[in-house]
This record gives sequence, C-alpha cells and structure tokens, in this order.
Amino acid sequence: MIIVLKPGIGKKQEANILREIRKRGYKPHVMRGVARTVIGAIGDELTHQSLETLAMVFPQVVESVMPVQKRYKFISREGHPEDTTIQVRQQVVGGKKFQVMAGPCSVESEKQLLETAVAVKEAGATILRGGAFKPRTSPYEFQGLGEKGLRLLAKARRETGLAIITELLSENHAEMVAEYADILQIGARNAQNFQLLIAAAKTGKPILLKRGLSMKIEEWLLAGEYVLANSNCNLMFCERGIRTFETYTRNTLDLSTIPIIKKESHCPIVIDPSQGAGRADLVKALCKGAVAMGADALLIEVHPNPAEAWSDGGQQVSLKVFGELMQELKPLIGAAGRE
Amino acid sequence: MIIVLKPGIGKKQEANILREIRKRGYKPHVMRGVARTVIGAIGDELTHQSLETLAMVFPQVVESVMPVQKRYKFISREGHPEDTTIQVRQQVVGGKKFQVMAGPCSVESEKQLLETAVAVKEAGATILRGGAFKPRTSPYEFQGLGEKGLRLLAKARRETGLAIITELLSENHAEMVAEYADILQIGARNAQNFQLLIAAAKTGKPILLKRGLSMKIEEWLLAGEYVLANSNCNLMFCERGIRTFETYTRNTLDLSTIPIIKKESHCPIVIDPSQGAGRADLVKALCKGAVAMGADALLIEVHPNPAEAWSDGGQQVSLKVFGELMQELKPLIGAAGRE
Amino acid sequence: MIIVLKPGIGKKQEANILREIRKRGYKPHVMRGVARTVIGAIGDELTHQSLETLAMVFPQVVESVMPVQKRYKFISREGHPEDTTIQVRQQVVGGKKFQVMAGPCSVESEKQLLETAVAVKEAGATILRGGAFKPRTSPYEFQGLGEKGLRLLAKARRETGLAIITELLSENHAEMVAEYADILQIGARNAQNFQLLIAAAKTGKPILLKRGLSMKIEEWLLAGEYVLANSNCNLMFCERGIRTFETYTRNTLDLSTIPIIKKESHCPIVIDPSQGAGRADLVKALCKGAVAMGADALLIEVHPNPAEAWSDGGQQVSLKVFGELMQELKPLIGAAGRE
Amino acid sequence: MIIVLKPGIGKKQEANILREIRKRGYKPHVMRGVARTVIGAIGDELTHQSLETLAMVFPQVVESVMPVQKRYKFISREGHPEDTTIQVRQQVVGGKKFQVMAGPCSVESEKQLLETAVAVKEAGATILRGGAFKPRTSPYEFQGLGEKGLRLLAKARRETGLAIITELLSENHAEMVAEYADILQIGARNAQNFQLLIAAAKTGKPILLKRGLSMKIEEWLLAGEYVLANSNCNLMFCERGIRTFETYTRNTLDLSTIPIIKKESHCPIVIDPSQGAGRADLVKALCKGAVAMGADALLIEVHPNPAEAWSDGGQQVSLKVFGELMQELKPLIGAAGRE
Repeated sequence: MIIVLKPGIGKKQEANILREIRKRGYKPHVMRGVARTVIGAIGDELTHQSLETLAMVFPQVVESVMPVQKRYKFISREGHPEDTTIQVRQQVVGGKKFQVMAGPCSVESEKQLLETAVAVKEAGATILRGGAFKPRTSPYEFQGLGEKGLRLLAKARRETGLAIITELLSENHAEMVAEYADILQIGARNAQNFQLLIAAAKTGKPILLKRGLSMKIEEWLLAGEYVLANSNCNLMFCERGIRTFETYTRNTLDLSTIPIIKKESHCPIVIDPSQGAGRADLVKALCKGAVAMGADALLIEVHPNPAEAWSDGGQQVSLKVFGELMQELKPLIGAAGRE
Repeated sequence: MIIVLKPGIGKKQEANILREIRKRGYKPHVMRGVARTVIGAIGDELTHQSLETLAMVFPQVVESVMPVQKRYKFISREGHPEDTTIQVRQQVVGGKKFQVMAGPCSVESEKQLLETAVAVKEAGATILRGGAFKPRTSPYEFQGLGEKGLRLLAKARRETGLAIITELLSENHAEMVAEYADILQIGARNAQNFQLLIAAAKTGKPILLKRGLSMKIEEWLLAGEYVLANSNCNLMFCERGIRTFETYTRNTLDLSTIPIIKKESHCPIVIDPSQGAGRADLVKALCKGAVAMGADALLIEVHPNPAEAWSDGGQQVSLKVFGELMQELKPLIGAAGRE
Repeated sequence: MIIVLKPGIGKKQEANILREIRKRGYKPHVMRGVARTVIGAIGDELTHQSLETLAMVFPQVVESVMPVQKRYKFISREGHPEDTTIQVRQQVVGGKKFQVMAGPCSVESEKQLLETAVAVKEAGATILRGGAFKPRTSPYEFQGLGEKGLRLLAKARRETGLAIITELLSENHAEMVAEYADILQIGARNAQNFQLLIAAAKTGKPILLKRGLSMKIEEWLLAGEYVLANSNCNLMFCERGIRTFETYTRNTLDLSTIPIIKKESHCPIVIDPSQGAGRADLVKALCKGAVAMGADALLIEVHPNPAEAWSDGGQQVSLKVFGELMQELKPLIGAAGRE
Repeated sequence: MIIVLKPGIGKKQEANILREIRKRGYKPHVMRGVARTVIGAIGDELTHQSLETLAMVFPQVVESVMPVQKRYKFISREGHPEDTTIQVRQQVVGGKKFQVMAGPCSVESEKQLLETAVAVKEAGATILRGGAFKPRTSPYEFQGLGEKGLRLLAKARRETGLAIITELLSENHAEMVAEYADILQIGARNAQNFQLLIAAAKTGKPILLKRGLSMKIEEWLLAGEYVLANSNCNLMFCERGIRTFETYTRNTLDLSTIPIIKKESHCPIVIDPSQGAGRADLVKALCKGAVAMGADALLIEVHPNPAEAWSDGGQQVSLKVFGELMQELKPLIGAAGRE
C-alpha cells in the first residue's frame, strides 16, 4: 500500500498515521518528496487489513491510498504461466482447435432444438447452446421450459454427439442442471451473484462466466477467483458486451478483452457476439474480429426461424446465415493459427 | 407497436409485413408518410408475441419497431395513483414522517453493533441497518458473520426498539433472514437476480430493492414488478449510485430518481448516500439534497470507528458526524414538508 | 511518482529502471515489499517528464506507475483556501447571496426575450440567460440569431437591469460576444476546446465552464486551469449532467459535484437542471436538491411558451412554473444559509 | 412522428393535440389501440418544426413522441448506395487497397520524424501521421511544435513520398494546416466543435473525423453531415474508443462501428487502436480485429523510442513492433479480400 499525505503535514500528524499503519500489521517506509510525503506500507495486502480507509478517516492528513498488489491469485497468469485447457466431452476449449458453441437463445420445442442441433453440427459447431431457464427483464416474458428444456438438450446431445452448454439461474438448480449440462453458463446478470458462483463451482462442471453488464475487468477476474478458490479450475470467461451510452447496439462488445484476459489470466476466452450487439446483422463481422484477435471460442445464437423466436429473435441468426458464417470464418481461423 | 418501413418499399413486401403482424395477433393500421410508411399494430403488447423481431428478420424492409405500451403494470402509478406506505413495526415508510435507517456496513461484534444502535437511535434514526451476509468483490474479503450477525441484530432490536434491515444474499437463506429482519434488502449486484427477488417476495416481508450498478430505470421498475407480481406489495426502491466513467466517487448517485420513481410508481424511494458516493466526506451534502428533493428515507452507514471497520470503512461516517448530520437535516425536513 | 515492479524482478532489470528514473530528473527510492518492489520517484511531476510511460516501455518489469501529485495548481483550494467571488455587474456569484440565472434556451425574438426577462426578474432572477449562437447536433436545426441575438440581450439588459450570460461558440467571436455579455458560457461540447477556453480567458470576462458530457472531475478542473493559467480568475464551474447508460433522462445530473468542486477548488459552482435532465418536469426537484447541497447559483431555461420554442422546448419551464419554483426555493435557500 | 397518448384521454384533450399537430404543419392520423391511442403525424420531419416538445408541454396527455425519420441525409447510404473513395495523393482510402497511416503522436524533431517516416514506409505504411498542434488535458503538458511541426511533416513527405495527416485544432489555423496536410484530422475532443468542422470542410481537403469520447453513432453521423452539408464529400470516420466505466484501458475501442458505419453511411472507416486502448501492448490484437472486420485503414502511433516520447508514450509502438505487426497483418488483409 502507498499512502500519499497532503502537503504541509506536521510531524505529529505523520506520527499518528505511522502508528495506525503499524497497528494494522504493515511496516511503514517514509519518502519525503518535493510537494508531499509518501509512505510505503510493507506487508501482504491479501492477509492484512486494508489501509484504504485511512484517506477517509484522516481526511485532513491523508490524500490518497493506493494498493500495489493484485487482488487475485489463482486466476492470475503470474502464478500459472501456461494456458488452461478444458475438456468438454470429446472437445477441448482453450487448445489448438477453435470451438464454436451455437444454438437457440431458448429451447422452445424438440423440433426447434433438434433441427438447430443437426444444422449447426453440420456447419461445424461442436457444442450446442440452449436456454432452459431464462432470466428475463420482465416477469411477463417467457421464462424458459425449465427441466423439460434440459431433457430436450440431453436428447439433442444423444442424437448429434454435440456437448451442451446451458445457463444456471438458481443455486437450488445447481445439481439438477449439472446432471444434464456439459458446461454451466453463469449469465451477465448473475456475474456477481457469488452464492451462485460457489454452487456452480462445487458441481465440478466446466463453467462459462459471462462478464456483467458493467463489470470492470478486475471484478470479472475476481468473480472467476470465486470459482477457482472453490476448487474448480475449469473456468472460461465469456465477453458479451458491456453497457455504455450507445443505443444503436444493445451492448458494446469489448473485443479488447481477448488480449487482456490472455495476458492477465490463463483461462480461455469465449466471445458472444449475439448478446454483444443484440443485432443479428452485426454477428458475422464481430465473429471475424474475435477469431482474428485470438479468441478460443464463439457462442452464437442460431434459430431456425428467428422471426418466431420466443426470446431475443432480433439477435439470433438463421441456419442459413450461420452456415455462411462458418465458411467465411475458415480462412481467418487458419490465419490466426487455429484449426 | 409502431413499425417503420424503409423508404421505397413495394406493395408486395408491405403485404408480407402486414401478414406477419396479423399472424401474431395484432391488427395493422397503415399510415403513408412523406418519406416512409409507418404501420401501427393494434393489440395488447403484454399478451401478444412481440413484434420487435421484425426489424431483424426483415432487415431490407423494416427500419425500426417501437413499443408504445409500458412493460410494467402493478408497479405503475397509472393504475395505483395514491402513494404506498409500508408499515415496519411502529414506523411507516413512505408516509408523512421522514425515516432514517442507519448502522454499520457489516455487523462485526455485539459491542460495535449495540454502541452504534444506541447512538443512532439517540440521534433520531428509527431503523437499524447492518450486514450479516456480505457480497464481496473478492473471495478473500470478510463475508459477514452470517446467522450470528442476525442474532446480534435481533438483540439490538430488543434493546433499542429499532426495527432492523439486513441484506438477503441467497435464495436458501430467505426464510432464515426473514425470521430476524423487518426489512429484507436486495443488493445492487442481485438487483436482477430474479430467483432471489421471488424468494424474498414470498416471505411477505417488506423489501428494499437497490438499483443495480447499470440498471436503467425501466429495468429497475420491472425488477420491482417481480416482487409485486409475487403478491408482495411492500416494496421500496433504494437509489445507491450507478456506475459511470467518473472515478472521483465510487458511483454516481442519481438523485433525479427521487422525482422519477415518485412519478412512475407508487412505492417509497430511499437514498443511500454511503454506497452512492463511496466517500464519507460527501455523505452530509448528499443527504441534504435527498431530503430537499422529496426522498422518503435515507440509508446511511455509521460506524463507531470507521478506521477499523471490517468493510467499506471509507464510506462510513462516525457517530459524531451522524449526530451532526441529523441536526443539520432537521430544517430541511421541515422545509420539505415532512416530520 | 510510484513505480510498482512485477514480482521476481532481478537486480539488473531493477537497475535499468532506476537509471531511467534518474535520467528523467527524479530521485528513486526503493522499498522492498512482501510480494513486490516499489520505487518512489522523488521530484516535481509538473516540471519533469512523466514516468507513466515506464509501464508500457518495460512491460516485463514494471507493473504500474501511479502519480502522487495533483495535476492542477491555480484552480486548487490547496493554494487558495478562501472562496472566490465573482462580480457580475451589481451581483456577486459565489458569495452569501444565492443567484438565479434564467431565460430562454435560444433568443428567438425581441418579444420572446423581453417578456421572459421581465418575468424572471419579477420572480427573483438576477441574471438573464439566452443563446445567440447555438451548437446543434444536426446542421438542419436552428443555429441561433447570431449577433442580432446579442443585440437583443443587450436591449433586455438595458430595460431590466439584469446581467446577461450567453454562450461563446467560436474563437473568432470572442471579442464580439465579450462586448455584449457579462458572463461568457463555454458549452459542454466545447469544454475541452482549449483554443476556445484561451480565447475566452483573454477577454477578461467572467467565464462559466460547463462540464463536458463525459468529463471526469479532474479533467474539468484542468480545463478550468487553462482559464486561470491565462490570467483570468473569474471562473465558475457549471454541472449540466453527464452521459450515462440511462435513457429516461437526457443526461444524469451529478449533484455530488457541488461538495466536490467546493472541496477541490475555490471557484463557484452553478447547477443547470434544464440540460441536466432534459425534462422540464424534473427541474423543480433538481433545483431544490442543488440549493440544499450548497450550490452558488442555478442556470434555468425558461420560455414564455415552451411548446413553440425553437430549440429544446421539452426542457424549458414556463414563466408560471418558474414563478412557483422561485417561491418554493425560498425556505430552502434560507435553510442552506443563503439569502 | 408518432405521438403516444396516455391511457384514458378524453376527446377534448385529444382534439387539442390534433390541433397542435396541424398547426406545426403535420397531418395527424389517429389509431385507437387496446391500451392507448397513438397518433401518426405525417410530414417531413427535417423541414417542419419538431413535435418532440409535445410530451413535455402536455405532460398530462402525451406519454411519448418518437421520430420515424433519420436526421441525416448526405451521409446516409440510403441516398448514396456505392462506397465513397477518397483520393489522397497517390493513395485511395476506401478502395480495394488497405491503407495504413502511421507515425508519432507528436512531431518532436526532424530526426525523430524522418527516422519514423522512413521506417514506417519501409514496413508498408502509405500515410504519415504526426501531431503539430496537440490538445492536452493539462495546460502544463507539451502542446506541439505548431507550424514548425507542419514544416517538418512537409519535409518528411518530400523525402519519403508519404502523404501526411495531422490534427486541426483551431478555426484560425484551418488555412495554414490545409496548406501542409493531405488529410485534416478532427480530434475526439473537437468532434462536436461544429465551427471547426465547417472551417475544415471549407478547405476542401479530405477530413478524418474521430468519434467523440461519448458520441453516439447517430451524433457522429450528424457531425459528418456538417462536413458534407458544407460541400466537402471527402470524409472518413475514425473510431478511437469511447469512454466507459472500464479503467484497464484508457478507452473502449468499439469495433462494431466498422459494420455499422459501412451500413449507415458510404464513407470509409478508419480504426485508431493506439488511442482506442491507450496501451501499446494491445495494439497488435486490435489491428488484427479491425482488418478482419472490414476496416478501410488503420491509424497507428509509432515512435522510435516510446519511452522518451513527449506525449502518450504508453500507447506508441516501437519501429520494431510496427514492422512485426505489418507482417502479421498481411494474411488477414488477404483473408478480408483486400490488398
């Protein structure tokens, strides 16, 4: 911790601060600068009490307090330099092979799901997505088929061999959803629902953690730390757009998270262009950018008839567009050094 | 719903759109304008399938689709013109009397809590706040005393007569927390954890719903709708700052929510200046603004020794500052027509 | 400056950094912590070259660089503890007397302006606002009457005795506008148009500097520093709302700037609730909050017939509402210790 | 325009609104819906007075007013379906050939500029960037070499054949800068400085218009409309990151603007990854994404010795990194169908 004192602080006030720093288990180290004095507090910030309160508690004396240590450890690439790869049935996420997860926003019916599953597999997808429990802004919107939806996903897996990913909404469903799913998705609205993260981690299943609507990268890494600290290291991050002032798109997809997550952590990074823009007409371009920038996988909403989708029809691409997209991505996947 | 067609759309394409609108249960009504044709789709938007997908599904034909109905009903002042008042033990929130909820961020010990409770009561507070379960950005930060904290809150209530408000973090704790608390607080990070909202609503206890970090007002009202739609009408909204680009304050407290919530809904509005700014030195001024603008209550973090608080010490005011604040607020409460 | 090194940095790499720090005129001071080494670089950050580039230039060695000095000086309360008061004809902004600046968004005609001027004066306003040059998002919107508008403002001043404030849009107009106006307003879109700020400062006239749409407080203070550094100390800041994700209001009025500007600087702070919300129905409540929180003045858009205003009619209040507002503010102005 | 009335509005109130609509030159068209009545106002929104004030002026009657027409025309692809290409000396921006503009943030000396120019040309860049007039947040930071910098740029052009792009900061410099530069850059802070846009347009030179820090896409297109409406159609847009809550990067580069600008307008789109992230370590990845997504050009800050740059050293890449980058981009430029 670095404690910056205000200009013109007397010896006595400085001594008070030094005493306070020692009391909390740190060793103070004084540097007298030109305009003000700075104190370095030496000690482990993860195990000692924070000194950040000093600025508020001694507002006449302390100008600011700045941490120097990172707040996460298991998730950090510092202590784990090699990439984490995650086995999902026959597929590996985070390895040489680029993965595509595709399927409808919501599971609506056996026919809808199977038709989609067969088509996305044929186009080259390896993992089937589909929501059985849906978090909806309004209580009057379709909330998902629940366990029936999970059974349909399991059926689609049997028939196509695709692994499945589906969202976990409630701590109480963790075991049930884990019985069916190959990857548990934690949605943006629950990205800091730590109880849910812990319940998900404890199932032992791979977890895809979406970025919250207004989550800083450090907070996202710390939410991931909740998973790893609960003994589950099969974590992948998924950027799905952040909330900004722009209204042309539903969210602003922050593709810079690809190099950033790769730099700060060892976990795979997945891009969701469907939620990211909220507009089907931007999905192709965003996928191309994600591949070129080094993402490990894509998560794409695909529907046999977007116009009649029960949720978020405007952001789902048709089977035909998805097929074209997969063709157009091929040269870029090669150019990015992936298969 | 209003559907705006692109310029120069032919009769045949228009007929397709009209067919689609009818198929979804709406009656179309065509208006030919100067630059483009607009179709009004007449029907109840809450019960029919949304038409918003048309713009994405027919991107060559439809330029935009705009809803005309509000998405919430129980929460709306339209159907419930008089103010809702909420009985909390001997106190009423949302009535003539201005209420002050105060207490520590986290319950740390019996001594800390009782000392605070006695002092805030003496200064004029009527409801005691204190966190027993704490949502923390990092898994390495203090997570609260849990049920032990709840028992201490109940003890403080017995000794001071203050009602208590505490945060509910997990669906699994809903019954337990409801046994102790007079008001259940739903925190900003869980403001769209709909499963938690439903579990809280079902306890029948009054609920204080904080605004999420990046929640639009419409989304906040809709989250409140989840409570009312689950047969609990004792809901109060609590503004606690939104996330913006500004870094001087932790959040940007949006005091305009006071007149807005009063206009759009019939529920009380509470202001939390402690989370709102994340800085104790701004608490007094923000409280004054909230009172003058017509808030129904304040939620203030107070600690006997902020420098040693186990969480968020920088935003908690001391007992002394709280006492001064309550004195300074008195003339404003009068000027705002409250007691 | 504080330079934080990565964990496990060897002596040789450290020596490189120390050499670099000395080369730029700072004296390094090494502190070896538990997890990493921190270097304090002692020297005046305003006169020496910045060290912030070290983190990018030595990415394998330096984790982060943090400044400890404030970047502004003339604007800071540190070196100028007493409040600045600004004489504007017979009025003083920033003193004991609370000031109200009111008038139409745009000057439209002699009749419109004089009717407004007479009415706002009668209601208690002391300064007349009115735009002669208007910055408009679209080139097809009304751009203001130009110099003709300035002449009408001067006429309104002669007839009512009100001082006038009007916006300066172009460096080329600085002298002309300064001939007519008592206060030059720099609008939000030009808040970092430094050439315009310098041209305005050089006229010697009092300047009202609006906060830019996405300006951090530090940047706003630094923009103000451009004015003071050009020998004009008659600067007042004006909060007019920042851009956030919320769409219910046009901007989010950040009332916490009132105590913040008072703390960081010695200049008066003015609140503009009309731009701040973009909705006339919120103006009354926002004015009340501003007064209670200690603002020095208000800047309010008032129009004899808002429905027919040539610009921003939706945010202008009528003469009648303005009269009511001034009555309702009186007890709050007293409660805030002002006249 | 679409005017939505509140529920339960009587005939008389409706008649008032209809009268008001007619008075402003529109023909009203009433649609009675299930929950509320909607009025379509038929007429040209660009030539008639806006109806948006109705909601504020008749708050008891009108719920909302929604425009249906786009606010821009010359910039729109609707009326100009083919791509605009811009001739810049021997190069064409917006055509088949992908262009790279590269050079230092600030022109510092002849040696620095020429060394950079020769190196970037050799690596494949076709246009040289360099700031002679620099807008700086603080008045104490380096403000650029001014006209001397322009002369150095002209010299670099003579010696390398590279075209040059440099920023225009002041209306008063428009003619002077246009004498030297091949492209005038309008920076983010001046993106809504309409006087500057008009002055730049009138020089007839190609203009690169950066997106403002918190500019919505519609506002950016409208700022571009100022250029085209002043008879200069050589406009290119440049995305350089928007301001969000994230602090890991200086800005959030919004790559979705590439397909959006291509869809909405006919002008070329350029990506600036240096300002976009504010971190040299992210530049390579962001360039790759931009190429794959269909950008027309890149604008990259390159410096022979970033550690000693006089401005923004942390975001400038070295000559060596730039050379590598150009090699890595080649296969992607091919995969994107460019040369």
